[in-house]
Amino acid sequence: MNWQRHHLLDIESLSAEEITMVHDTARAFREVGSRAIKKVPVLRGKTVINLFVEPSTRTRISFELAAQRLTADVINFSAEASSLKKGETLKDTARNLEALNADIIIIRHSATGAPHFLSRFLNASVINAGDGAHEHPTQALLDTFTIRERKGKIAGLNVTILGDILYSRVARSNIWALLKLGAKVTLCGPPTLVPRVFEKMGCRVTYDVNEAVADADIINLLRIQHERQRKAMFPSLNEYASLFGLNRALLAKAKPDVLIMHPGPINRGVEIDSEIADCERSVILEQVTNGLAVRMAVLFLVSGGKGPQEVAA
Amino acid sequence: MNWQRHHLLDIESLSAEEITMVHDTARAFREVGSRAIKKVPVLRGKTVINLFVEPSTRTRISFELAAQRLTADVINFSAEASSLKKGETLKDTARNLEALNADIIIIRHSATGAPHFLSRFLNASVINAGDGAHEHPTQALLDTFTIRERKGKIAGLNVTILGDILYSRVARSNIWALLKLGAKVTLCGPPTLVPRVFEKMGCRVTYDVNEAVADADIINLLRIQHERQRKAMFPSLNEYASLFGLNRALLAKAKPDVLIMHPGPINRGVEIDSEIADCERSVILEQVTNGLAVRMAVLFLVSGGKGPQEVAA
Amino acid sequence: MNWQRHHLLDIESLSAEEITMVHDTARAFREVGSRAIKKVPVLRGKTVINLFVEPSTRTRISFELAAQRLTADVINFSAEASSLKKGETLKDTARNLEALNADIIIIRHSATGAPHFLSRFLNASVINAGDGAHEHPTQALLDTFTIRERKGKIAGLNVTILGDILYSRVARSNIWALLKLGAKVTLCGPPTLVPRVFEKMGCRVTYDVNEAVADADIINLLRIQHERQRKAMFPSLNEYASLFGLNRALLAKAKPDVLIMHPGPINRGVEIDSEIADCERSVILEQVTNGLAVRMAVLFLVSGGKGPQEVAA
Repeated sequence: MNWQRHHLLDIESLSAEEITMVHDTARAFREVGSRAIKKVPVLRGKTVINLFVEPSTRTRISFELAAQRLTADVINFSAEASSLKKGETLKDTARNLEALNADIIIIRHSATGAPHFLSRFLNASVINAGDGAHEHPTQALLDTFTIRERKGKIAGLNVTILGDILYSRVARSNIWALLKLGAKVTLCGPPTLVPRVFEKMGCRVTYDVNEAVADADIINLLRIQHERQRKAMFPSLNEYASLFGLNRALLAKAKPDVLIMHPGPINRGVEIDSEIADCERSVILEQVTNGLAVRMAVLFLVSGGKGPQEVAA
Repeated sequence: MNWQRHHLLDIESLSAEEITMVHDTARAFREVGSRAIKKVPVLRGKTVINLFVEPSTRTRISFELAAQRLTADVINFSAEASSLKKGETLKDTARNLEALNADIIIIRHSATGAPHFLSRFLNASVINAGDGAHEHPTQALLDTFTIRERKGKIAGLNVTILGDILYSRVARSNIWALLKLGAKVTLCGPPTLVPRVFEKMGCRVTYDVNEAVADADIINLLRIQHERQRKAMFPSLNEYASLFGLNRALLAKAKPDVLIMHPGPINRGVEIDSEIADCERSVILEQVTNGLAVRMAVLFLVSGGKGPQEVAA
Repeated sequence: MNWQRHHLLDIESLSAEEITMVHDTARAFREVGSRAIKKVPVLRGKTVINLFVEPSTRTRISFELAAQRLTADVINFSAEASSLKKGETLKDTARNLEALNADIIIIRHSATGAPHFLSRFLNASVINAGDGAHEHPTQALLDTFTIRERKGKIAGLNVTILGDILYSRVARSNIWALLKLGAKVTLCGPPTLVPRVFEKMGCRVTYDVNEAVADADIINLLRIQHERQRKAMFPSLNEYASLFGLNRALLAKAKPDVLIMHPGPINRGVEIDSEIADCERSVILEQVTNGLAVRMAVLFLVSGGKGPQEVAA
């Protein structure tokens, strides 16, 4: 099978084979990061634009470095002081960027569906770097890639996602990817943040954190996103930490080889205790390293790369 | 004739031959934008600094990409958090940048004449990316380039500039360029924004929008620049739109092959109706593409490029 | 001797031989800045991250250009809109950047010791670009390099540092470097800004500005740093200018071949009169040019460069 897609908009529309192809391509690119010269000429002379309408440093830098390592030219476009502030529509902004012969537009936007909208009229490739509370597909691709590299497989594993599910695009994209790849997904957190509706996607929902971690092969902790919550969904950070924070006592109830994941930035002392974040079961920094490789893979594939076999060649 | 100028400060001091040489060089570079590898090594190892004291995303990105495609190193210097805020003079800032062996300094500044001022003491090339309400020479070069590419000539054409002329550096630079190239220029808009003094430059001034569009080969719509107007120059945006906005009814009075231009960002529903912005007579996005080529040409020429004959070689 | 250090954290821990080796390496790199193609492939495929938690344009651009001229990939990370604002610890931010396979992290931070802290757990090289009121080692390296290039030596010279010593990391780093290299250092300024405690480092402290300049081979003027002073340390800028500002009358009392230095940005009319800043004894812009060469040298050396002999090869 060869990669066919010109855009990467979400995980929902990807097949298990496509997700696996991104993983395999990422594996080939990860090796570049450990070379003395961390650069391949795969996208030389291509123009990549980071259109970050919602601020982000972490994801923007990961994409920027991924593009640089593929030898692309990268432009950062942030919402501050931009023509979006002067009343220009998103469609016009995007078409203007494309008129600069942009090959790939990476968009982060607070509105659900913004990347899909752009993909309907742009010839440039569109990559979703997070749209509202909807999806964050490269995060799910890097999370599942990290699981595969550590556990050797994904099918049949028990993955518990713990925290703010309702407002989390990371959760949505992970749920889609994990279910497609055959994992069993448990969601846990305060009832206000983990509605029962997720059961319809095929997840188990529980409000008993001990039950949620007991049989987990993976615990993926989500950030308590103060900035995306419009009203108080739980009494206090302290209460959240004591009820749902991953600490030594709670971890003792999990399997000895459980992997601890977090998309970052972590709130030490809130969703995760400091010592747990740094323990040997935590693969949080490995996720960051893998994220770069996954983004190199995605940039390569949407630009016409056929698959991992082309990276080696 | 070979290009001689070390700076690009305004259109007023350029000859028709020089403007045409920029067009011809831009035509040669535009082709680079459609290549698989959009890059030529013309400015390899040169340092280009974007000194944007007045914020701009659109023009800054166009220059940044132009420099990247010529393989120059580009540094963005914006006024926020800079030493200009610590009380450093513009002269000292510019001399500091030159001391970093900058080859080209691209300046946007709210003060008329700032680029000319820098050119008097810098050895680096200075390019004016917009100074106050004075000039924006690369915009006029790309506008006239777009007209020439579409119409095959400029001399003898009727060009109507419609909107906020008084506060517009785009208008001033376009008027200079069009008159030098032999076009007939009509200015139209609310009397408060289109003073009769422009007649002394050789333009026709009319407040009758039907008359302004009737014989036009080109209608160049200017943005209503809220940010540059210090007081209300017309009652409301709605009134402006109904009196001077380009809509289907008004366009019906123009020639069938009229070209519609706008320097962007456009205010849909104010100076231009949405359907008109997207119709086949609109070359607004072509202007953006041509702008990149024109800026590559300007960077090349002020760096010692002799003319279009050198691009092919 | 070959360079051994993986980090550049301060001047205090460097030997005179190490400082001299940076100078000699900078001399080899300075020549690159005057070439037609200002670029060497020394750090090709290396990733350099500018982690500027405290805002700076001048130093950030100097490091960015230095990295570009060595053909490294550079990422700018500023505190605004970053995960540091979301409550992430500095340690986690730095470890995340390292997980992106960063080779060198250049840090500016308002907290004394931040670079030393990072160096204790990072494998990436750490370069201090200014930590609180503690040290700014590359500034001292470029200042002493400028003195050596102009005077042919440093040992035995009289160097007067005039201005805000107490709050100045530039002063601290310069004092360490100058004393190690055998210069005699005099500090002068308002008593509130020049405490006697500096005598313990081996400096002469005087509040008589005439005495301070009389036998000086070098006068290094420090910026009055409004932003770093928490309360008024002197009555007014005017009073400071009249008592300690370097003007024609004061300069007449100095040696005819005295060099005038300033780390910039200068406050014309405060610590230095405008005509003095531009006179032929001023090497202020030379410091800027040398700063770029020194930063290229530092980036090269902490990346495994052995010394100046390797630059020629």
